[in-house]
Amino acid sequence: MLLSLTRYSIKPVIYTHRSGRKIKEKIARMLEKKKLLGDEGQGKFVLKCPKGTRDYGPKAMAIREKVLGVVTESFKRHGAETIDTPVFELRDVLMGKYGEEGGKLIFDLADQGGELLSLRYDLTVPFARYLAMNKVTNIKRYHIAKVYRRDQPVMTRGRYREFFQCDFDIAGQYDAMVPEAECLRVIDEVMSALELGDFQIKLNHRLMLEGMFSVSGVSDLEFKTVCSSIDKLDKVSWDEVRTELVNEKHINEIVVDKLEKFVRMREQNSSLSNSQLLDRFEKDNETGTHSSVKKAIADIRLLLDYCELYDVAKRIIFEPALARGLDYYTGTIFETVVKEFSTGYRDGDGTNDEVDENSTNVGSVAAGGRYDNLVGMFSQKKQSVPCVGVSFGIERLFSIMEMKAELEKSAVRTTETEVFVASAQKNLLRERMKLCKLLWENNIKAEMAYKANPKMLTQLQYCEERLIPLVAIVGERELQEGIVKIRNVEDRQEQDIPLSRLVEEIHARLAKISRS
Amino acid sequence: MLLSLTRYSIKPVIYTHRSGRKIKEKIARMLEKKKLLGDEGQGKFVLKCPKGTRDYGPKAMAIREKVLGVVTESFKRHGAETIDTPVFELRDVLMGKYGEEGGKLIFDLADQGGELLSLRYDLTVPFARYLAMNKVTNIKRYHIAKVYRRDQPVMTRGRYREFFQCDFDIAGQYDAMVPEAECLRVIDEVMSALELGDFQIKLNHRLMLEGMFSVSGVSDLEFKTVCSSIDKLDKVSWDEVRTELVNEKHINEIVVDKLEKFVRMREQNSSLSNSQLLDRFEKDNETGTHSSVKKAIADIRLLLDYCELYDVAKRIIFEPALARGLDYYTGTIFETVVKEFSTGYRDGDGTNDEVDENSTNVGSVAAGGRYDNLVGMFSQKKQSVPCVGVSFGIERLFSIMEMKAELEKSAVRTTETEVFVASAQKNLLRERMKLCKLLWENNIKAEMAYKANPKMLTQLQYCEERLIPLVAIVGERELQEGIVKIRNVEDRQEQDIPLSRLVEEIHARLAKISRS
Repeated sequence: MLLSLTRYSIKPVIYTHRSGRKIKEKIARMLEKKKLLGDEGQGKFVLKCPKGTRDYGPKAMAIREKVLGVVTESFKRHGAETIDTPVFELRDVLMGKYGEEGGKLIFDLADQGGELLSLRYDLTVPFARYLAMNKVTNIKRYHIAKVYRRDQPVMTRGRYREFFQCDFDIAGQYDAMVPEAECLRVIDEVMSALELGDFQIKLNHRLMLEGMFSVSGVSDLEFKTVCSSIDKLDKVSWDEVRTELVNEKHINEIVVDKLEKFVRMREQNSSLSNSQLLDRFEKDNETGTHSSVKKAIADIRLLLDYCELYDVAKRIIFEPALARGLDYYTGTIFETVVKEFSTGYRDGDGTNDEVDENSTNVGSVAAGGRYDNLVGMFSQKKQSVPCVGVSFGIERLFSIMEMKAELEKSAVRTTETEVFVASAQKNLLRERMKLCKLLWENNIKAEMAYKANPKMLTQLQYCEERLIPLVAIVGERELQEGIVKIRNVEDRQEQDIPLSRLVEEIHARLAKISRS
Repeated sequence: MLLSLTRYSIKPVIYTHRSGRKIKEKIARMLEKKKLLGDEGQGKFVLKCPKGTRDYGPKAMAIREKVLGVVTESFKRHGAETIDTPVFELRDVLMGKYGEEGGKLIFDLADQGGELLSLRYDLTVPFARYLAMNKVTNIKRYHIAKVYRRDQPVMTRGRYREFFQCDFDIAGQYDAMVPEAECLRVIDEVMSALELGDFQIKLNHRLMLEGMFSVSGVSDLEFKTVCSSIDKLDKVSWDEVRTELVNEKHINEIVVDKLEKFVRMREQNSSLSNSQLLDRFEKDNETGTHSSVKKAIADIRLLLDYCELYDVAKRIIFEPALARGLDYYTGTIFETVVKEFSTGYRDGDGTNDEVDENSTNVGSVAAGGRYDNLVGMFSQKKQSVPCVGVSFGIERLFSIMEMKAELEKSAVRTTETEVFVASAQKNLLRERMKLCKLLWENNIKAEMAYKANPKMLTQLQYCEERLIPLVAIVGERELQEGIVKIRNVEDRQEQDIPLSRLVEEIHARLAKISRS
């Protein structure tokens, strides 16, 4: 840990502006540590993964494949196709898509001659580039792949610089809110199947933000920066946000005080139903007559109605302060929070906050929204393709699942081996090899020890540790009699089987085991 | 195509030294094209994937998943676990592992402060780093992931800058040639299952090369560079290799002429069996008494014996001229060539040759060998972990499979949708949504049109194009009577089913369809 600091840049490019003092303190501490290490640390080769990344060992992989399986199953249940895109894109494709904070966090490739490239920051922009390039105007696709952000990693909370996103998007000119409702249904299915406890889907609309800001007197130019402050309201107090808006961003106090009424509407009326809260905006003299707000309210009401049909309405909470950081959203925006893990911290896309590294809080696990103009940005004829989608931040789910597996001390199988081929005496390597070949040929998953003369006890222990269900034992007596001994690992029962019937017998036993 | 040239670097870093004249000609041609484009091309945004990369659309993905499924199945059949590592590594981890040519082809990340990183060039070096870091001394693992090489892409032949490798490796201190035999068996299983036609596995041994070189008078310092020339013998004539060795690499003519006898032994004795060819080396006064050659011959004979047991001996051809480009091999080396596609060209790891872009030749599709010292290079105590493994170059298989699918005009399903929910009249959107929800709840893969009032014909055509087996039709009459009409897409038969029995009926029909 200490050694790795010697290569750490002291340029605080990865910190947000709002915590200037903290940064200075951190740098001072780091420089001190660096001094302590002296020359010893310089140039030493440290065996590690790059900062903010991790290896997946066999157990972590088994959990990861289970989680991804659940997600994929839900995507397929909704008839989605899948696509894949390169891990890097032309830098110009990514520029200007990720808001105030996001742009700073893009990983660039070195200029080694040729095109300027950057690692993908999400799967949405590559998807839009794919649609525009191939002139696809409607598709329901999922994409499960790793994305890259030069963010300050918080590994304990599953915040990495390399992490999976699982995206489900619906592109096409369709009737209002029908695709949105399906995205919310998919969130509900995935979150329920993963059994992560109670969760909520916060819902808002870009036009709602635009309307509230407009009637409060926020100018169009200030829209993004005010959004980025408002978005912090679920983890810091209004007073802090107010201070930032007034003192750091120099927004007029009167404007900020007017804005407060609207953005704190949910916070101050937590018992109101979604519909009742929408009523408040409708009855308000200013928002109630503002065309953007009216459009937003109509959309949200229709979506809530469809959510009733899809049995997800109970998960939805209308939150006028939800203002996700990405530039490209044009309509509904939503974000899922696991209640058990959500106190005091939420990590939106592209935000980058100082957080307590000891917390096990994993925050937002699925978020998305409508982005009707992104494809048009890549199209020569500016042909727009309306899109809406959701992205699951699966690394956080891995963290939770790994914690759960750890707590429950559950045995995780990392192989699918069905039969272990063992030998009872020495000098039977070639016989074990012949038997393995017979099993592989018959599509039975089999392995054996690679040593010429393994001990019987070692072989059996291996099977018990690895939860391999069957052992096929060759021995001198067995060879002479043309039989193989089959052992059930669980009850340790053994039985002699003629070699000619072996494959059939193993298939029968495996079928029985998989049924039980 | 022309436009994309405007961003092309003219620095010929990606060409090998041996084709200096060709490079100059190419540059001249490119500069001319650039001039023709004039200022128009400058700074224009071109919508494309980065050079040497591709998107996978839904059909390509369906094929890719099929190929990867076959490979994974074989790996699991042999009891392998899986791991994953980050897409980039500390640059120091990759340096000095990939031979004369490979090192130039590594993709570096930009220095944005912090660690110096590079994209992984293969999966073997990250695997060795993983073993050393986690002090794993024995494991059988597979790893399927993308790797990156700044190579000259030949897309028609499946040579990309971003491509999949599927690696199967056995790490551990085991008895000689037992893990090797299993690797060759895995190659045979995968290649056979993919039905790519006849193939051969060329086999050699690093000690065989060392011995042949040593008795010919090649110095240790010249070993790598002579290897890199010899490795070209399957695509260029001996005269060309000789010229390169003598004129470009300044190897003594007497040495080169002596070497010729050994490295052309297979070429000049193509009818000899592997054992007979080994006899020649044994009977030769010089190689027959050289300790390295004797060790290599003993290893190869034992491996051929095990290959008989595993029924892969028929695929193996001992080729003393096989000299793969990677630094890290220490023992057996092997390379698989699909006969139908192998004429006149082979693409070894890390080599980088001028080739005819119109050919559909895909060359080597699986290669590997033993690397006993690589893990030790990462270990502080230099603890070595012997390893052997094989890597499948799956992109080339994708190319072949895509060509085959194209030729056979076979329909490729890109979704798994089981039921399409259609409406017979207008204003039934909400009813369709309710029905979809019922199906999803019962784990039936279902979709519907997102338009409020889709046409019946459009809905049915969609099902036929997409090969969706069943349609559930809601209509006003059906609603009144509490029924849903089920249509079999294949035979267009329709039947009314009470809503209460719908799920059961669909499950029954799907089971019947999956059996047929």
